[in-house]
Order: sequence, then structure tokens, then C-alpha cells
Amino acid sequence: MSLPKHVRLVEVGPRDGLQNEKQPISTADKVRLVNDLSAAGVQYIEVGSFVSPKWVPQMAGSAEVFAQIEQKPGVTYAALAPNLQGLEAAIAAGVSEVAVFAAASQAFSQRNINCSIEQSLARFVPLMEVARANGVQVRGYVSCVLGCPYEGEVDPAAVAHVARELFNMGCYEISLGDTIGTGTPGKTRQLIEVVSRDVPRDKLAGHFHDTYGQALANIYASLLEGLCVFDSSVAGLGGCPYAKGASGNVASEDVLYMLDGLGINTGIDLTALVAAGQRISDVLGRPNASRVARARQSAG
Amino acid sequence: MSLPKHVRLVEVGPRDGLQNEKQPISTADKVRLVNDLSAAGVQYIEVGSFVSPKWVPQMAGSAEVFAQIEQKPGVTYAALAPNLQGLEAAIAAGVSEVAVFAAASQAFSQRNINCSIEQSLARFVPLMEVARANGVQVRGYVSCVLGCPYEGEVDPAAVAHVARELFNMGCYEISLGDTIGTGTPGKTRQLIEVVSRDVPRDKLAGHFHDTYGQALANIYASLLEGLCVFDSSVAGLGGCPYAKGASGNVASEDVLYMLDGLGINTGIDLTALVAAGQRISDVLGRPNASRVARARQSAG
Repeated sequence: MSLPKHVRLVEVGPRDGLQNEKQPISTADKVRLVNDLSAAGVQYIEVGSFVSPKWVPQMAGSAEVFAQIEQKPGVTYAALAPNLQGLEAAIAAGVSEVAVFAAASQAFSQRNINCSIEQSLARFVPLMEVARANGVQVRGYVSCVLGCPYEGEVDPAAVAHVARELFNMGCYEISLGDTIGTGTPGKTRQLIEVVSRDVPRDKLAGHFHDTYGQALANIYASLLEGLCVFDSSVAGLGGCPYAKGASGNVASEDVLYMLDGLGINTGIDLTALVAAGQRISDVLGRPNASRVARARQSAG
Repeated sequence: MSLPKHVRLVEVGPRDGLQNEKQPISTADKVRLVNDLSAAGVQYIEVGSFVSPKWVPQMAGSAEVFAQIEQKPGVTYAALAPNLQGLEAAIAAGVSEVAVFAAASQAFSQRNINCSIEQSLARFVPLMEVARANGVQVRGYVSCVLGCPYEGEVDPAAVAHVARELFNMGCYEISLGDTIGTGTPGKTRQLIEVVSRDVPRDKLAGHFHDTYGQALANIYASLLEGLCVFDSSVAGLGGCPYAKGASGNVASEDVLYMLDGLGINTGIDLTALVAAGQRISDVLGRPNASRVARARQSAG
């Protein structure tokens, strides 16, 4: 058993976590969240999304958020940019790194972004060129890597295909997303083994949802397979629309607690991270979905 | 990576899960829970506890519960019997297997059962003799194996000492309990490595609490270390995630979901187990603490 000494946590709370919130969240609260996270030592924060406000109204103010956050040296502040128009808006807002996403399942791609997997990939080609010309790094997400709400099981070879296409197109890292949280540790390891034939393990990240409580076990399994980048969401913000009331994104605090216990360095302070998560939970008026946060609050 | 093909789940919900409930629960509801569990395929159920009703009033009716449950062939119906008096009551009630417990932490032993570790072990000697004479098997629990609420870190050698004493005294299996849920996978593996120098791995069980969300990762780590018996509690009974002082038993449904995904046989049907957990949650009038149960109910 050899585990990585250092893990990079990609904090997706401000974007993936908040994007489906129906209630208005002020720019000041979003800025505060991002600044709280960087102050806690988080080195990579997905701050917002440059998408049509028609589809994701909560992210409409992402340019404003970027303009107002304190940009701490050494921290990457990224945004989702699903198409060329989004990329151009992101560049105009001074964003230095963007993320694109594709699905490993044809049915999910059609229902979620209204086009086939191949069509979605083709659309990224001009985006990648503009990003390259502007010195903007691009990270790729693949969704439904361990299950699809419409197709059920997803073939690891299908995941490997999409991951390879994104990687060959120029994405510097591919985040494998268990969108519906149905993955378990053995399947996670098998997936990484298959995908890593096409994309090196040090270019892969794990993005696990805790809908079925499996996220930490899957992260531990991924660590054993050599992954050292994981996406997570402070206070477990966000969730899967297909599992109402159940949690979605794995809570950053819970991941950090495990990594701390494993002696793996992240540069993040747990107490400060718990405080950041509690503050945004209070803003949203909802229970903190991090078990570590709840346990510490009960104990304290 | 070689995982066991079969795992035995020890269902502790009716005992460990319900014992701290303040509201009265009828014998009929307890009996129904046990019968639901055996109908779902659970092969080992800790049904009740023969302790002073002064200390654990909820378990006062354990003999009645034993008298009324349907005893399915091949299923073990066990009870906690902390002392000779409890064992005699358990034998009178027709119980064929009991459990005793000791702590790995001196401070926890003093505060929880009001005697030192050595005193508690000494008290089990006459109990073991009477059990042996009556053909009653005894299972041993060790608590605080990965942390103590009073002492903090617990030395794996201290756990090994208590485990060895119980094993040498005649306990056929030793369940290692992470009572406060602070364990993480690396420490879990290290603990098993140390303890297994004194007690064979196939005589060890894992009892994890999900207070910090680490239970499934710890169970996966334990599987990799060769353990194939785990304690769990249907619907996560005994640890409400929204209440202070949550003990946080890992939910049987969440463990089973992971084991099913790993292709490990348990003989238990997940759908029936989820139904059993929901029924008792409804009786108690509290949210189901199993993530799998919540996700399935949202999806369905």
C-alpha cells in the first residue's frame, strides 16, 4: 500500500454546490465563501460558471464574483465554460482556468446538454484553440462514469473513450465524475485501471458523490490506485437532482478528515474549512451536510 | 487485492440501535423489527440486552422479545450479557449466544462501567465458565479501539492486549469497536495488523461508527486486511445525525450496498432490508439515517 504524500482538493462548492440553489445568494456571500476557502488553505476553487443565465440563473453574477474575490497567490480560481461563448466571457472576466464537461453516457448527454457525446466533444475543439491562444488551461469533466440515471451501468471503455478524447484535445486533467453516486470501491478501481490505459493516472482526478454514502470509500480506493486529485464541496453543498433530500457532492471536510488521518498533506486547515462551510450553510439556512462538521459541533 | 467472497453482517440495530431511545418502544415493534431482519436474510441479530433495567430501561423486555420472535433456522439471535447475572437471565430466556464488552481505554472503562479494564476482564472469567457449561457461545466487544473520548489516541497494543485476553478467555470472535468514529482507513489497517499478531484475522470483526463519515472507508480498508465480519445497524439506528451525542452506528443498508457492489455475498436482500429500516424509523418518528435508504426513496 503506497499512498500519495500530497493530495490536491478541487473545491467545487461555490459553483457545483450553489448552481442549483433556487433562493437568491448575494454576490457578497459568494465572494465571502471563496475568500473563506482560500484563507483555509484551499488551493483550487471553482468559483463560478459562464453559462447562459437562462439555464443557470444562480451563476449569472460569476464575472462580478471574480472581480470581487481576493486573488491569493498560488491559488487557482477556475470557472465552468461549457462553450466558446462561455469561454470568451470567462476570459473577459480574467479567469485563468476553465472546465468543460462531457458525459460517458449517451442518454445523459442528450438529456443534460441536448446533444450526443460526439457532438459535445466536437464543440470543444474551437474552445480549446481559443483557450490555448489565450493561455487559459482547460480541465475536463466526464460525468456518469460509474452509472447513469437513464442507462444504468456504464462501460469503463466508454468512459476511457471520452476521457482520452478530452485529454488528446488538450485538457490537462480529466475529472471522473460519479454523478449519481452509485459507484463502489471495486468498480472505482476497475474504472481507473481501464481509463489509465489511455490517460496517465497523474492526469486523472476523482469526483465522487455521497448519495449512497460510498464517496469516501471510493476516494480511498482511488488513492490506492494512485489518484491524487479529488473534487469535493464544502459542507456538501449541492446535490444530485435525481436524489432529492439525499446528499450529492462529498463534503470537503469529510474528505479532509480522512486525508489528515492518512497523513496525506493538502495544505488545508480543517477547523477553518469547517467554519467556512458552517457560514455558507447558515446563509442558505440549511443543515450542514458534512458529518465531520456536525460531529465537531456536537462535541464542541 | 483479494477480498473475501462472503461477509457476515452482525445486525446490532435491535440492541445497540434502540438501547438509548428515550421513548417507549413496544415489544411488538421490537419483535417485528427482528422478524423483518431475518426475513431480509440477516443471519446474525443482536436482539436485546440482559442488563439492569435501572441502567438501560429500553432493554428491560428482552426476555419477552426473545419469547415472541420467530426463530428462523440458521439465524443466530444473540444478546448482550455484561455479567453473570445477565448471562443467567439470558440462558433462562433461551439465548444461545451472548456478547460481553471491555474497553481498550482505561478512562472509558472507568466512566462507562465503573471499573478498570483488568477488573472488567476478571469479572468475565466466571461468566465464561457458566457460558461454556451451558453451551452458550460468547462474542467479545472491545470499545474505543481507534480513539477514546477522554484519552484521545489509543495505542493499538492496548487494543491487542484486551482482544487477546477476551480471546484466550474463550470468546470465539472479537469485535473491534470504533466507538467514537474517529478512525480512518490507514489507522484501521495498522490496528488490524497489530491485533492480528494476537488474535487471528478470521476471529476479528469490525464495528465502525459513521460519526465522521469514515465507516465505509474503514470497512473497505478492513476487507483489504482480511476481515469478513462487520457489525452494523439497520437505518443507522442509535445515531441520529441531527442530534447531539450521536453514537453513529454505520447503517446496515449502506454497508450492504458497498458489499453488493464489491460482489461480496451476505445472503441479505437490500430492498427488504431498506423496508425493515424504514418501518422502524417510522415507528420512532425519525429520519432514516441510511443514505442508501434515503437515495432509494427519493429515486423511487
